[in-house]
Amino acid sequence: MKKVLSPIQKIKGGVTTATGFLASSVKAGIKASGNPDVALVVSEKKASAAGCFTKNAVRASSVDWCASHLPSKEIVAIICNAGNANACTGAQGVRDTAQVCDRVGEALGVAATQVLMASTGVIGHPLPVHKIEAVLPDLTKTASSRKGHDFATAIMTTDTCSKESAVRVGSGAGSYVLGGCVKGSGMIHPNMATMLGFITSDAKISPAILNGIVKRVVDRTFNNLTVDGDTSTNDMVLVLANGTSGVSIVGKESVSLFEEALFIVCNDLCAQIAADGEGATKRVEIRVVGGKTFADAKKAAKSIANSLLVKTALFGNDPNWGRILCAIGYSEAHFSDTKMLVSLCGIPVCKGTQPVPFPVERMRKLMAKKLVIIDVDLAVGVAEAISQTCDLTYDYIKINAEYHT
Amino acid sequence: MKKVLSPIQKIKGGVTTATGFLASSVKAGIKASGNPDVALVVSEKKASAAGCFTKNAVRASSVDWCASHLPSKEIVAIICNAGNANACTGAQGVRDTAQVCDRVGEALGVAATQVLMASTGVIGHPLPVHKIEAVLPDLTKTASSRKGHDFATAIMTTDTCSKESAVRVGSGAGSYVLGGCVKGSGMIHPNMATMLGFITSDAKISPAILNGIVKRVVDRTFNNLTVDGDTSTNDMVLVLANGTSGVSIVGKESVSLFEEALFIVCNDLCAQIAADGEGATKRVEIRVVGGKTFADAKKAAKSIANSLLVKTALFGNDPNWGRILCAIGYSEAHFSDTKMLVSLCGIPVCKGTQPVPFPVERMRKLMAKKLVIIDVDLAVGVAEAISQTCDLTYDYIKINAEYHT
Repeated sequence: MKKVLSPIQKIKGGVTTATGFLASSVKAGIKASGNPDVALVVSEKKASAAGCFTKNAVRASSVDWCASHLPSKEIVAIICNAGNANACTGAQGVRDTAQVCDRVGEALGVAATQVLMASTGVIGHPLPVHKIEAVLPDLTKTASSRKGHDFATAIMTTDTCSKESAVRVGSGAGSYVLGGCVKGSGMIHPNMATMLGFITSDAKISPAILNGIVKRVVDRTFNNLTVDGDTSTNDMVLVLANGTSGVSIVGKESVSLFEEALFIVCNDLCAQIAADGEGATKRVEIRVVGGKTFADAKKAAKSIANSLLVKTALFGNDPNWGRILCAIGYSEAHFSDTKMLVSLCGIPVCKGTQPVPFPVERMRKLMAKKLVIIDVDLAVGVAEAISQTCDLTYDYIKINAEYHT
Repeated sequence: MKKVLSPIQKIKGGVTTATGFLASSVKAGIKASGNPDVALVVSEKKASAAGCFTKNAVRASSVDWCASHLPSKEIVAIICNAGNANACTGAQGVRDTAQVCDRVGEALGVAATQVLMASTGVIGHPLPVHKIEAVLPDLTKTASSRKGHDFATAIMTTDTCSKESAVRVGSGAGSYVLGGCVKGSGMIHPNMATMLGFITSDAKISPAILNGIVKRVVDRTFNNLTVDGDTSTNDMVLVLANGTSGVSIVGKESVSLFEEALFIVCNDLCAQIAADGEGATKRVEIRVVGGKTFADAKKAAKSIANSLLVKTALFGNDPNWGRILCAIGYSEAHFSDTKMLVSLCGIPVCKGTQPVPFPVERMRKLMAKKLVIIDVDLAVGVAEAISQTCDLTYDYIKINAEYHT
C-alpha cells in the first residue's frame, strides 16, 4: 500500500519562517537581568490579523488596544516588551501603549492602528516608554527574516527555554507556512494566562475567516492549558497572515486544512509551555474521549489538570487514580458510572468508579518519565478534548514564594 | 452606657456539650497508626437532623445513605470511621454502609434508618465491616457525655489537631447549647471536602426549619473554605437537635438567633480547619464587603482563596497585591474600577486597580504572623462573604507527593 503523505509537515521554525515576516530584538534595560526585552515582528505586506485575549476583568492596556483593533486586514507590526506588564497602571498605561504604537507606526510609515502591542512582566509599575522609544531605531533597522528565534527569546520572563513551532502545508495551489512562538511558564490557566503567543503565516485569508479559526483553535488548545490555575491580566494570542505565499484560504477544504495546521502549531506550543511550567519535572497530557459534548470533555480534562492533589501525586510518581476520579466527579461532566475508563501511561487503573488491578512497580517507573499521559473515556458520547499541564513540585512553591514584588 | 451582653456566648466544648448527647471512640484497627478510628455519637432522645453533602458526582455510599434519610425527626446516632472512605467501592460499599447502620441500630434498639454514617480515609478499598462490628458492643457500652473530645480525635486523618467549638445561647425561654467538631486538612474546597462536621444541639426545632438553617449556614461557612481546591467524595456536615433543653426554636427571632449561633460554631470550625490545612504555616481570612450580591462577594473571596499565586506569596510574606487583584479580576465578580479597596493586614495596598504606597518592611512583619487578613471592598453594593484558607507551602507538596496509595 502506498503511504499517503500528510499535507501538513512539521518543520523547524518560528515567527519569521513564513515568507514576508521580519523580526528583531534589543536590550532596552526593562528586564533586571539586562537581557533583550523589546522585540518586533514586521510583515512586509499588510496582514490579516485576529486574536484571543484574557478573560480577566483586570486587563492590561495592551490587551484593550489589540482587542479594539482586531480583526483587521492591515496589520504591519507587533511590538512586545518583557519585564513590565503595563497592567494596573490606569490612564497613564493606556496613553503609554498608544504612544509606543504611534512611534512604531512612525518608524515604519504606517498608522498606529496597524501596530499591535503585547507586554509581560511586573504589574502596577508604569511602562518605561522612554526606554522603548530609545531602542526603536535599532529595532526597525535590524529586523531580519533570520531573527525569529531572537524574538522568541526576548519575550521570555520566567521561561527557562524559548518555545517555537512551525508547519509547512502543501495544497493544490502551492504551499504555505504557519509558524510562531509563545512565552509562558507560570500564572498559566484556561482562558489565557501570562501567556503571549504570536503566529504568522504567508497564506492569504480574510480577517473574518481567520478570526473564526483562531477562536476555535485557541479554545481547543491554549484555553485548556494550565500550570497553576491563575489567569493573567495580559494574555493574548495573535495570528497574522500576509498572503505572500499566494495560496488563498477559501472554501471549506482549505479552511479545514489551515485550521488543522494552526491546531498542530498551537498544541505543540502548549505542550512546550506545560513542559516548562514553573518547577515542573514532567509534562502531563490529559486526553478525554467519549464526552457527551466538547464542553463536557473539556470540563473533565481541565478539572484533572487543575487538581493540586493529582498534580502532587504525579510529582510523587504515585498512581493515585482515586484523585483523578475525584476530579472528574466534581467537574460536572457527564460520565458512565459503569463504563468510564481511566488509564495512566496506557495502563487501565479504573473502570466505572472502581479500581482495576495494575502492576504498581512498572507503573511507578513509567510515571517517572518526562511525559505522563492520562486517558479518560467518559463513555457517554463521542466528544474529545486535550489538556496540557505539568506536575506540582517544591520548585513551584520556591519560585512563587521567593519571587518578591 | 450599659454594656449589652450578647445572647450567644462561646464556651469550651464539642459534640457532647449539649445535653442528652453521648459519645465514644475505640480502636478497630482500620487506621494504620493503630489510633482510635471508629466513633459514635448517640442522642438520648430522637433528634431532628439535617445535613449538607459533597457536590462531587463520585459520592461515597455513606453520603448517599445520609442524604436519603435527611431531613429527619428521629435520628438517634451517628457512626463515623476514619482510615477507609468506603468510596469507589460499588454495590459492596452500599451494602456495607447499610449493614453497619443496621448493626448500630440493633445495638441501640432503633431502626437502621435512625442511624447516620460518615467515613473518611483511603478511596477504593472495601470497608472492613467485620472490624467495625467487632467493636460495636464496646462502642455503645462506653458512650458518655464526657467523650466529645475522644470522638473529635478518633475521626482525624491527616489533621494534626482536633477541632471543636461550642456556644451557649440565652433566650427568654431558657438557654441551649450548640457544639460540634470537624475533621479535615487536605482536599478541602467549596461544596464540601474530605471534611466531616458534626454539630449537636439540645434546642427543639423541626427538621424542616433546621434543614433550611443548615443549608444557609453551610453556604456561608464550609462552602467558602478552601485548602487546595479539591472537593472530596465523602464530605458532609450533620446537625442534630434533640430538644432536651426545652427551648423551642419557632418564630423569626429565635430562628435568627439559632442560625447566628450555628454560623459562629461553623465559622470557628472552618477557621480551625484552615489553620490546620496541610502544610500551612498560617491561617488566611478573606473578608469581602461591598459586593453586588452574596454570590458575587463569595466568587471574589473564593477566587482569592484558591489562587496558588496568592497562597505562595502569603507563604513568602510577600505583599503581592497584583496577584490578589488578578484573582478578583478572573472571579467574574462585579467591582468598581475606581473605588475597589484591597487591604492586607489592615493596610490598604490598592485602590481601584492601582497601587497605594505602604510600608513594605512593616507589612512583611505583619504577614509573618499566624493569621493574615485580606480585606476587599468591591464598592458596588452591600453583600459580604468570608472565605477561610491557608498558605501553600513546601510541606503541602511533601504531604501529597509522598503519601502513597
